[in-house]
Amino acid sequence: MEKNTSMQLSVEQQREVERQLSIIRRGAAEIIPEDALASKIAASVVSGKPLKVKLGLDPSAPDIHIGHTVVLHKMRQFQDLGHEVQLIIGDFTGKIGDPTGKSETRKQLTEEDVRRNAATYEAQMFKILDPQKTKFYFNSEWLGAMKFEDVLQLAAKLTVARMLERDDFAKRYTNNLPIHIHEFFYPLMQGYDSVSLESDIEIGGTDQTFNILMGRTLQSAFGFQDSQAAILMPLLEGLDGVQKMSKSLGNYIGIDEAPNEMFGKTMSIPDELMLKYYELSTMITNEELAALREGLQDGTVHPRDAKVQLAKQYVSMYHGEEAAEQAEQHFITVFQKGAMPDDIEPFQVNAELLEDGGVIVSKLLVALGFASSSSEARRSLVQGAVKLNGEKLLDPNERIAIKDGDIIQAGKRKFAQLVIA
Amino acid sequence: MEKNTSMQLSVEQQREVERQLSIIRRGAAEIIPEDALASKIAASVVSGKPLKVKLGLDPSAPDIHIGHTVVLHKMRQFQDLGHEVQLIIGDFTGKIGDPTGKSETRKQLTEEDVRRNAATYEAQMFKILDPQKTKFYFNSEWLGAMKFEDVLQLAAKLTVARMLERDDFAKRYTNNLPIHIHEFFYPLMQGYDSVSLESDIEIGGTDQTFNILMGRTLQSAFGFQDSQAAILMPLLEGLDGVQKMSKSLGNYIGIDEAPNEMFGKTMSIPDELMLKYYELSTMITNEELAALREGLQDGTVHPRDAKVQLAKQYVSMYHGEEAAEQAEQHFITVFQKGAMPDDIEPFQVNAELLEDGGVIVSKLLVALGFASSSSEARRSLVQGAVKLNGEKLLDPNERIAIKDGDIIQAGKRKFAQLVIA
Repeated sequence: MEKNTSMQLSVEQQREVERQLSIIRRGAAEIIPEDALASKIAASVVSGKPLKVKLGLDPSAPDIHIGHTVVLHKMRQFQDLGHEVQLIIGDFTGKIGDPTGKSETRKQLTEEDVRRNAATYEAQMFKILDPQKTKFYFNSEWLGAMKFEDVLQLAAKLTVARMLERDDFAKRYTNNLPIHIHEFFYPLMQGYDSVSLESDIEIGGTDQTFNILMGRTLQSAFGFQDSQAAILMPLLEGLDGVQKMSKSLGNYIGIDEAPNEMFGKTMSIPDELMLKYYELSTMITNEELAALREGLQDGTVHPRDAKVQLAKQYVSMYHGEEAAEQAEQHFITVFQKGAMPDDIEPFQVNAELLEDGGVIVSKLLVALGFASSSSEARRSLVQGAVKLNGEKLLDPNERIAIKDGDIIQAGKRKFAQLVIA
Repeated sequence: MEKNTSMQLSVEQQREVERQLSIIRRGAAEIIPEDALASKIAASVVSGKPLKVKLGLDPSAPDIHIGHTVVLHKMRQFQDLGHEVQLIIGDFTGKIGDPTGKSETRKQLTEEDVRRNAATYEAQMFKILDPQKTKFYFNSEWLGAMKFEDVLQLAAKLTVARMLERDDFAKRYTNNLPIHIHEFFYPLMQGYDSVSLESDIEIGGTDQTFNILMGRTLQSAFGFQDSQAAILMPLLEGLDGVQKMSKSLGNYIGIDEAPNEMFGKTMSIPDELMLKYYELSTMITNEELAALREGLQDGTVHPRDAKVQLAKQYVSMYHGEEAAEQAEQHFITVFQKGAMPDDIEPFQVNAELLEDGGVIVSKLLVALGFASSSSEARRSLVQGAVKLNGEKLLDPNERIAIKDGDIIQAGKRKFAQLVIA
């Protein structure tokens, strides 16, 4: 592949390269090396040849959640730009299991397991990826054919010291915890997948940096191909807003979860993470994202409304538009209306309380008569007893955006519907 | 295999075990573990089943010297005790060469090379080993059949830390010199050979300790067999008496060297190493060795005569008895008589000079009139100008054993034949 520097691009081609780069770069934590990505895209624009964008998949039972879709959305963006996706199921590793028998997490899979998991992957992946531009591979195809001497050729490409630089190896070595020699082969195998498929790009989470760079190293060591560029995506925090989204922590939204469950969970995402969820796990365009960010900043878009839209997008993507509408209705009924009395008193919000279309929550509660003092209002808030349209308000000093018709609740019995003149 | 502790041996069997142990232990630098050797021999004595005694051979062109025969003689002792020898030619390693291409010493061998080298090995080995009790193996037979998953099973048996304990790895790792990952497989392969052939004993030089113990580790890790015992033989010093015998240092006696060459080189072995040569590289029995040691100590055996016998044994073993007789004659003619005039003056050794059948060399030279003073005698000696029966005398203070008929020479022209009344 030619290098960017030696290519003469027309103005139009240069613009296309910039357009693609602006989409690919969005949300990426790191691109290694940045200039290789640019030159690969330029070469593709000039030649019309799509790039091969690789993702390695764990062969164990797939149960994809929104956190996993971050890399899938990046791949979908590549597909929308005309490129091709290589999904590699690491069935070779799965069939071996953990030869020491010590690891709980690396159980040996049967041929049957692998096939069933692959079918599940396909069903789940194609909710995001374009099947026309996606190829599935099983790495047992090339790894299973390797003999001892091929393995030695592979192992000869790397030094022990380099391998021990990997975070978890380094820690274990330093702490005198055992590293079995075969463990060195997991990154080597992942890297060799790139050699075998001549991948141009590999995408993964930042926790995969070492393994993905291994592909670069091995492609260069084996020769006859350009080294891939690594696109490292950030890890998406889960519903708790702190920990990485994961099944074991329970802070996840599964893409196979029922529409109402999915909708409700989405509504519990912390406001401050909402844009990140949009950026990393939806089909939103750069322009739409910029507009949303601006709207949230200048108050013309209410965070709750944006979150409803996010929830609808998720349900729509994974269950269809109709299901999305129904889930929204269900949410409104159960969470917003369901727990409220039918006869809620209207409350005219005094102009003195309003400032830039927002109010300080504790002041509002006192004005409503829901608290006798500012300090009582604070206590209620801190205890989680106050809700706006069914969502808890926790910060007494927060200036919240309100609008005509909003329902505010304190404790189980105090309700009011805000009227803004 | 049963353990010694659970076996009831008859007095006769116990005596046979002791006899075998006394022969096997002779000259060994270390036996690991000592009790495993004893219990293996006991089990063999009880069952009548021979032990399988393994030796790994480098597949590169063989050119065996006396240093190499140390382990072969130990194997021959096993054969004489009824056991069987497994010679494993590491052709698998040889065919691979060094995948990094950086090592000068590990050139890739062709199938043809390997076969030719094996034939040479056979020819050389059977000068010491009993062909009836020797089996040749090529480890490509089992290693070449291994697939990636088998290699991972093998690699899973050992930790990185354990491997880095090997001297040369430890040194390189500490000094930030590269260790390529495939290098870990050389000891693993050697160890796996023992698993594959279910070896009971492995013999090697002390420099092979790590690799031989690897066989023990792997046999235990793979299960279904007792771990082999390691018999580690000392490295034989070369003709210089200091460095390990090796071709590159030039201090060796090759077993394919011409009889006269072999004889002459043997005569240049330092006296103090002669018993070690006998012990480690001849067919001498324990009883004969004990007698020789005693004879040398009490002066009834002259070191030069013992050395002549050693030289004859070597030539006889590698070229036959007739060649040995001829080489001795040649040596006497050329080195002892050849360079001397026909009319050598006799010299009656004064009883005053003699003390316990020996003389101080410098005093003898003065008495002979070959030096005008003790200090001139010292200079001649230090310069290597003085010979007894063709062999240089270097130490002025040495008390040398002399006997009637010995010829002493100083410089090119001064000769005398000693007469002892």
